[in-house]
Amino acid sequence: MDLKRAVAKEAAKLIKDGSVVGLGSGSTAALFIEELAKRMENEDIAIFGVPTSYEAKLLASHYGIPIVSIEDYDVDIAVDGADEVRKKDLALIKGGGGCHTWEKIVDYNAKEFVVIVDESKVKDSLSFPVPVEVIPHSYRVVMKRLKELGGESVIRLGERKRGPVITDNGNFILDVNIKVENAEELEEKINNIPGVVENGIFSRVDKVLVGTKKGVKALKK
Amino acid sequence: MDLKRAVAKEAAKLIKDGSVVGLGSGSTAALFIEELAKRMENEDIAIFGVPTSYEAKLLASHYGIPIVSIEDYDVDIAVDGADEVRKKDLALIKGGGGCHTWEKIVDYNAKEFVVIVDESKVKDSLSFPVPVEVIPHSYRVVMKRLKELGGESVIRLGERKRGPVITDNGNFILDVNIKVENAEELEEKINNIPGVVENGIFSRVDKVLVGTKKGVKALKK
Repeated sequence: MDLKRAVAKEAAKLIKDGSVVGLGSGSTAALFIEELAKRMENEDIAIFGVPTSYEAKLLASHYGIPIVSIEDYDVDIAVDGADEVRKKDLALIKGGGGCHTWEKIVDYNAKEFVVIVDESKVKDSLSFPVPVEVIPHSYRVVMKRLKELGGESVIRLGERKRGPVITDNGNFILDVNIKVENAEELEEKINNIPGVVENGIFSRVDKVLVGTKKGVKALKK
Repeated sequence: MDLKRAVAKEAAKLIKDGSVVGLGSGSTAALFIEELAKRMENEDIAIFGVPTSYEAKLLASHYGIPIVSIEDYDVDIAVDGADEVRKKDLALIKGGGGCHTWEKIVDYNAKEFVVIVDESKVKDSLSFPVPVEVIPHSYRVVMKRLKELGGESVIRLGERKRGPVITDNGNFILDVNIKVENAEELEEKINNIPGVVENGIFSRVDKVLVGTKKGVKALKK
């Protein structure tokens, strides 16, 4: 079985009847949503989904998972993917899909935050560019501040490369090549730059499930 | 002469020919924009304005000040108002008008950031509710996090009290009753809550000009 599918299936087993579940974004989280929908159908359990993006919302609706809002419901468990996981402290980079602001709002407010990845995402050090969502007219001054922190940024462009990607919140995304050492400290520093809405460093995760060729392994802090 | 007018006039004198000037929002900053326009007319000097809100932009256009964007120009000096100034360290609360995100983007990136207030705004301790701009669907979970920091929040309502105020960036504003001791630390902590775009604590200001009954006084750190 595909490693992403295997870890998504394993995560779906964690979900208890009646839970409010944060539904992550990205290819592995999409498989989780599918596996969760299968469990609902096969086992007749009730689940309420809190999406982390319009992508997750549309997919969950497609599979018949009832959607509720974080405006009204506490999240019991959030299951989300990641672009990169650092082995030593489980610091993550997320936001390759541009959804990290919604993701962090849901994931950090869940009672439990579980990340699912295949083994290709687990690294000794982080090198994936850090996505930073910014208020559009601030991009130039935010890029200057990021440079002071040692980061070189580019504005993420849309598929036709003619203009910027616009997030679910109407903002731009900068992709920042920056050395991540103390993840928690850098996450805070970037969030404190005026114009920054949220960045894709996630220093707070409860558990990471990794799909490996020898089966699904759990990493904890 | 009115104290607000006096301090606005004094600030306008600081502006050098050819400067790019951050134009603040609020009633005192509006008088500054007016006084700046008078100087341009009377002394034939050239000024380029970088607005901190649509309010400031429309007003500057009305007075004939050429507008440029922070996307393209570095700001030499920003002149802005405040809702409250703490005497001992010049920590400010801004955002009573809901423009603090744009204001901080411009003010913190100016080579010099000058605040103008009348003496009624200068206090021994800060008690004005801290405005916090949030991504709309995050308001409930942000309010929970703010409560953990000791703050009680309300959603700012529009004039008809039927729905939330929407900012220039399309977001909501929470007004937070919270004790501000270490301003810099609290400013960072609030900005690190997922869903928060920017808060109205300004711990970094170069100079505060105060309109008093005995004339305009300068406070420095």
